[in-house]
Amino acid sequence: MKIGFIGLGNMGGPMARNLLKAGHQLTVSDLSQSAVAGLVEAGATAAASIAELARSDVEMIITMLPAAPHVKGVYLGEDGLLAHVAPHVRLIDSSTIDPMSARQVAEAAAARGNSLIDAPVSGGTGGATAGTLTFMVGGDKADFDAALPVLQAMGKNIVHCGPTGNGQVAKVANNMLLAITMIGTAEAMNLGVSLGMDPAVLAGIINTSSGRNWSSDTYNPYPGVMDNVPASRGYTGGFGTDLMLKDLGLATEAAKQARQPVILGGLAQQLYQTFSSQGNGALDFSAIIKLYNGAIK
Amino acid sequence: MKIGFIGLGNMGGPMARNLLKAGHQLTVSDLSQSAVAGLVEAGATAAASIAELARSDVEMIITMLPAAPHVKGVYLGEDGLLAHVAPHVRLIDSSTIDPMSARQVAEAAAARGNSLIDAPVSGGTGGATAGTLTFMVGGDKADFDAALPVLQAMGKNIVHCGPTGNGQVAKVANNMLLAITMIGTAEAMNLGVSLGMDPAVLAGIINTSSGRNWSSDTYNPYPGVMDNVPASRGYTGGFGTDLMLKDLGLATEAAKQARQPVILGGLAQQLYQTFSSQGNGALDFSAIIKLYNGAIK
Amino acid sequence: MKIGFIGLGNMGGPMARNLLKAGHQLTVSDLSQSAVAGLVEAGATAAASIAELARSDVEMIITMLPAAPHVKGVYLGEDGLLAHVAPHVRLIDSSTIDPMSARQVAEAAAARGNSLIDAPVSGGTGGATAGTLTFMVGGDKADFDAALPVLQAMGKNIVHCGPTGNGQVAKVANNMLLAITMIGTAEAMNLGVSLGMDPAVLAGIINTSSGRNWSSDTYNPYPGVMDNVPASRGYTGGFGTDLMLKDLGLATEAAKQARQPVILGGLAQQLYQTFSSQGNGALDFSAIIKLYNGAIK
Amino acid sequence: MKIGFIGLGNMGGPMARNLLKAGHQLTVSDLSQSAVAGLVEAGATAAASIAELARSDVEMIITMLPAAPHVKGVYLGEDGLLAHVAPHVRLIDSSTIDPMSARQVAEAAAARGNSLIDAPVSGGTGGATAGTLTFMVGGDKADFDAALPVLQAMGKNIVHCGPTGNGQVAKVANNMLLAITMIGTAEAMNLGVSLGMDPAVLAGIINTSSGRNWSSDTYNPYPGVMDNVPASRGYTGGFGTDLMLKDLGLATEAAKQARQPVILGGLAQQLYQTFSSQGNGALDFSAIIKLYNGAIK
Repeated sequence: MKIGFIGLGNMGGPMARNLLKAGHQLTVSDLSQSAVAGLVEAGATAAASIAELARSDVEMIITMLPAAPHVKGVYLGEDGLLAHVAPHVRLIDSSTIDPMSARQVAEAAAARGNSLIDAPVSGGTGGATAGTLTFMVGGDKADFDAALPVLQAMGKNIVHCGPTGNGQVAKVANNMLLAITMIGTAEAMNLGVSLGMDPAVLAGIINTSSGRNWSSDTYNPYPGVMDNVPASRGYTGGFGTDLMLKDLGLATEAAKQARQPVILGGLAQQLYQTFSSQGNGALDFSAIIKLYNGAIK
Repeated sequence: MKIGFIGLGNMGGPMARNLLKAGHQLTVSDLSQSAVAGLVEAGATAAASIAELARSDVEMIITMLPAAPHVKGVYLGEDGLLAHVAPHVRLIDSSTIDPMSARQVAEAAAARGNSLIDAPVSGGTGGATAGTLTFMVGGDKADFDAALPVLQAMGKNIVHCGPTGNGQVAKVANNMLLAITMIGTAEAMNLGVSLGMDPAVLAGIINTSSGRNWSSDTYNPYPGVMDNVPASRGYTGGFGTDLMLKDLGLATEAAKQARQPVILGGLAQQLYQTFSSQGNGALDFSAIIKLYNGAIK
Repeated sequence: MKIGFIGLGNMGGPMARNLLKAGHQLTVSDLSQSAVAGLVEAGATAAASIAELARSDVEMIITMLPAAPHVKGVYLGEDGLLAHVAPHVRLIDSSTIDPMSARQVAEAAAARGNSLIDAPVSGGTGGATAGTLTFMVGGDKADFDAALPVLQAMGKNIVHCGPTGNGQVAKVANNMLLAITMIGTAEAMNLGVSLGMDPAVLAGIINTSSGRNWSSDTYNPYPGVMDNVPASRGYTGGFGTDLMLKDLGLATEAAKQARQPVILGGLAQQLYQTFSSQGNGALDFSAIIKLYNGAIK
Repeated sequence: MKIGFIGLGNMGGPMARNLLKAGHQLTVSDLSQSAVAGLVEAGATAAASIAELARSDVEMIITMLPAAPHVKGVYLGEDGLLAHVAPHVRLIDSSTIDPMSARQVAEAAAARGNSLIDAPVSGGTGGATAGTLTFMVGGDKADFDAALPVLQAMGKNIVHCGPTGNGQVAKVANNMLLAITMIGTAEAMNLGVSLGMDPAVLAGIINTSSGRNWSSDTYNPYPGVMDNVPASRGYTGGFGTDLMLKDLGLATEAAKQARQPVILGGLAQQLYQTFSSQGNGALDFSAIIKLYNGAIK
């Protein structure tokens, strides 16, 4: 298929390469010329501008951008996608943004006759490179079905979450819960160990009890409990504190707009902000346990 | 084996019956004469007092009491267990109390020559009746081994958590984490549904993603997502809000004594207190979602 | 002076009337024709559009709008103020919005040669009517000085807070602190009374001690402690819960953009959201004490 | 008057000296022999034991002890005060403990025929030395009146708070509110300054607005805003973080026993615990602002 791809950063770059590997023809655009050059070397064609890409003969355009203002700029800007793209071109936004913005852009696309689905991902740069991302997709079922083969070239788990915006809803709800369970696990592990328990024994008990959760049994924040997790390599790699902080900002913003309380979610955002303000923004998000136990390295 | 059993309430009663069924000889004591009468009818012998029970020819004594003051009273009181029991009698306290109190009583027992292990349970009255409780045991490995066959008559999962007090530590750490993950799951489910997602679809995504936890995949608080959980029967049955509140009180008390922060744990305690103060103490603890969404019945 | 006034709602209406009373000539604009008619009856001239008002011979334009999107629309819109106003016209925005938006609009004004100061108010509709508002002003000192006589016709306390945006900063910082002290006062009063103290005696002690604050000594949330406060008339009148919720949203948004934690501030926002979600958004913000004590009416 | 004084620490020592200065005859007791020696040098008589002090011809006994277990030990212990003191001797406990313990000890005293009032203080070691403490007194009005002249030798502000235990209630309620307002003030100051405001200007605005509180206008935590406060001398002196932490522990314990929520109070406790765990327990409690802004020294 002829596909346009806008946004070739840490996530978008490897995603685009996986599309090339799957045999698709790619036209790409990014503010970074070196990112574009890398993809061209791998077989893609460079578009001189978003407008040019929009007017080319692509059948589908995928965007992978840092935040809502970039998404609005690329789609709604005076010389943006919607001003130039033909109505039959399918649009997929894989950026992680707040659900309301996702719906606003999708409505603008619909008004022009284009279908736009939101398809944020989880799985990090590792999943983007390996092609094992999870896509949480919001939009019509027919549009989901049409996008499925393309998304499968980049991910393993492609879930239809309901109408437009629901991909973003699923992502912010899940990641807010992840932040809460991670901090809770950090507190429980630190409390138990400070009261005399061996961390591995405590994790074993929790993982067969009602406190069990992904942060305790797959990504334990206490050093030495599990191999191959950030806690066992100084909290490097993984999902950064500042990325979690961004997602918590989206979750509380969505809650504010929906006029719903997220009491632990709001506190989780503030605790990650506190931890980031103390200079830890680049550490994996499981490092939040250091806020509780300064002796953990 | 000849076993003494003190405390025949909602939990202790069925536990004692399971010991009788397993063929043990029981001498029992409780403030409630009807509770004692019930056990006598089932084959137990009644002791006129704790002192008499302590001086009888039992080889082991199990206590199952509501809170630390009762445990201290029964063991350390002027006419209590330690004042009368022979040194070779093994002592097991299955009450849920704070780790410091557990260690204090165990030290007093050790000073008299008795081994005392702490063995709080999880699994509720259902598990007590079915004999499928989990026992979290603190004490010497040899004492744990000696108690194991007896505990197996009452439970399915018997875990050695380390030295004296660690059974209590494991329980309060796990249950604090349970409260946090339950409230977090309630917030995430309510947020997602209020933003337009189907609750079952959202639960499905969370349960295959990083937000996954026991409260989301085994005990989901949103009505209609799972059968056979309190959320699908008006939050009746299960583990009561006020019991969770008691455990959170123990967790924050233990954290205070250990001089460790439990930031989400402390907030969870206050939220359950708020919910209980609004008249919901008898509802299952997953009903906390009603604090967020008044429309849930 | 010839002054334009845009936004004639609950606050803007009485503010504009005070300008008329002080002898200024007013040209006004509002989406509500009845609001415009009321001011015309009081002596103002109606402008057919924002563009017309901008192109009239006014020397100063004051805007009083509900939220940042309205402010951006009125100033930055295609047919908005900045597209039509002459460079010498002084601009004053008295809306309460986030500091970043205030600075963004002020920069756009500066680029066109207009000075724009932010001048949010406190004092409520009562202060707007009585002309006793507090104005917190951000902008150059010369612009502040030029605006001072006009602001004095509407307010009593006019404070220069520093460069552009600082008026908004002062307002959100103060109101976030107000929310925290109000909830804290509610908790302390409820705790003390539930432990047996007379509320008036407790308030008296706090007000001469280190817990003293505006919410305890001027606006006490416990019924019967003070006359002439919302707590003594069923929490009617005053500063509404949903208005406080809006200001807390601005404070946490500003903190997010500044990458600073506001831990109690974030929790205060969530608690007011919880209280509002339970149907109390129209009650005075001191009614938050009902979240703690359901018996208070 | 002939007065017994038990507990000659940082607070009790200077309080006892002020009684001597006022002309009272003192019999003293403390675990520290050097503390006793100091008072003897100043004119007091040493008692060999609490029992001896209790049996001496004193008319009143004042206790000033670190925590509830010490108070219970001194009053209720086998060889304690109540076992030996004559019924007419008036008892005053100036320790800061939880209200329930205070009431429990007072009831035991009443059962022996002795009146015991609780009279915790605020004002710190400075107030103890200067004789300017505030006493918050719980007990019968007649007992309050009888104690008044003695308390006036040690303090300036003597307040009757109602029946037994209410002195403790007033103190924990006030100090919990103090912790909340201090953290709130720290957050508001840090937020405003990070957004570009001068700290002194911001404090000035808050102090004439609805955010005004003792922590903002008398004890501002931002360095340089006020002279002669701990913030302007590296957070030395004043009221230590760990003392505030102790009072917050009493407040949340009292709330737990009263089954009332203290949501911000509970979070304040956890934040002070976090700050203390990071090695700051000896700093003045206004240093909590450093949790938000690591650049503040």
